Amino acid sequence: MRDGMRAEAPIGMFDSGIGGLTVAKALMERLPRESLHYVGDTAHMPYGDKSPERLREYAYGIAERLRREGCKALVVACNSASSNALEAVVEAAEGLPVIDVVHPMVAWAATHHAGGRLALIGTRATVQSDIYARLLRARGVEVTSLATPLLASAIEEGFHNGTISHAVVEAYFADGWAHDKDALVLACTHYPLVLEDIRAQLPPGMAILDAPTVVSAYVEEVLRTRGLLSTATDTAISRHRFEVTDWTQSFADGAAHILGHPVELLEVPWPETT
Amino acid sequence: MRDGMRAEAPIGMFDSGIGGLTVAKALMERLPRESLHYVGDTAHMPYGDKSPERLREYAYGIAERLRREGCKALVVACNSASSNALEAVVEAAEGLPVIDVVHPMVAWAATHHAGGRLALIGTRATVQSDIYARLLRARGVEVTSLATPLLASAIEEGFHNGTISHAVVEAYFADGWAHDKDALVLACTHYPLVLEDIRAQLPPGMAILDAPTVVSAYVEEVLRTRGLLSTATDTAISRHRFEVTDWTQSFADGAAHILGHPVELLEVPWPETT
Repeated sequence: MRDGMRAEAPIGMFDSGIGGLTVAKALMERLPRESLHYVGDTAHMPYGDKSPERLREYAYGIAERLRREGCKALVVACNSASSNALEAVVEAAEGLPVIDVVHPMVAWAATHHAGGRLALIGTRATVQSDIYARLLRARGVEVTSLATPLLASAIEEGFHNGTISHAVVEAYFADGWAHDKDALVLACTHYPLVLEDIRAQLPPGMAILDAPTVVSAYVEEVLRTRGLLSTATDTAISRHRFEVTDWTQSFADGAAHILGHPVELLEVPWPETT
Repeated sequence: MRDGMRAEAPIGMFDSGIGGLTVAKALMERLPRESLHYVGDTAHMPYGDKSPERLREYAYGIAERLRREGCKALVVACNSASSNALEAVVEAAEGLPVIDVVHPMVAWAATHHAGGRLALIGTRATVQSDIYARLLRARGVEVTSLATPLLASAIEEGFHNGTISHAVVEAYFADGWAHDKDALVLACTHYPLVLEDIRAQLPPGMAILDAPTVVSAYVEEVLRTRGLLSTATDTAISRHRFEVTDWTQSFADGAAHILGHPVELLEVPWPETT
């Protein structure tokens, strides 16, 4: 593919479910000329309780599919997959730029909270990988992590009953473990969806670091550096493509809630029989 | 296989995760001579948010595997699968007795609460199938159902942090919707694990109907009728076999909690490449 054509190809993204749509939405707002090809691997949701081996298998399969379909770059819009399966995605990408959600956040946190102490919440898979703590400790930032494994599922449910996600958030912060830290890292792309519930559990004014802003800025930088920014003049939403590995009403409802309008969801077979 | 040999074959059982172990435990206590071959489809957990199509695919695959491995009967120890995929299991069973968790409970409730009004909680897949309400209404029992989609996941998490499952149970019953009913049906095999949390949300003395007792009695009846009850004199726990489609510490911890001792968990490939 010539470079001029490649810049007009879509950005491939994936997550286990709707969480990555928080990153997709930030990308749409920041880079309205780009087309997104989003895959929610709902057949295997939630990723947060899967083993590293399974996460690598799922991530490799989806990344390979997005590459074959002609995406110009891949965004791993999921912390569990970024923490455990980044190498598998890079391998499947065969040289395409790969942007995960962990490294941009680490770079941001190390710059803006140098010498500080951060609290972090994420799925079990993310917290057990210890990747945030290792990378940040090497840059002089201390991290205290709590696995909040039910929260992503609670959020998928929370659109139908806000009291549930609120109760779960409250239970995870009840003992005040995060109160004396400088900021809280939301190490799961679902968590921005209950930002206000989380804020209510923290001391007033405590900073909350979430992926959508940081990661979308990083995607822009990578695409610009590689000469891959779209120059399309058309910004029609219809150029985006949303796929799930298992069609469910929950995903459709959640996607409409996050993006502000219903989207057409295609179900794609998984595993693929090729 | 001659009938005499067949009676000594294991009972095959499956669930998406640890919930079905509540039924397995009741079976071990009621029928200590039987061997169980249990599969937890953790790679696809939770089942409660999957589509009927996917549930049929998963249930068929596991049932076929259990049949091929020589099980003498199959127990669908999961309400989401029983409600949406029973025919697929019967097809895969090729004539083996299949016991689901819905029909024994319906028979029990219709007998013990004739003319009554029941409250029911279950996964989204179970409640949306409407199977309990349809079968019970046909027998003169009214059912008011609430999908409590987060509860099974909360229970898998709840062994590590009891406040979480408690908060979720409380949120689901907060508005008192179940208070004026005659009894509550726990239409998910995970829910007996938070029986006390649930009881605390109900009027004193309100009956709670759960699957382990009812279903294990029904399994005994079916095996006896078919001449398939084991006559083994050995009751060693080591004859049971526990498999998962994705090995996770959560399952290992949950299984040890429910069964009262650690079990050896084998990971089996999924989907199988045959």
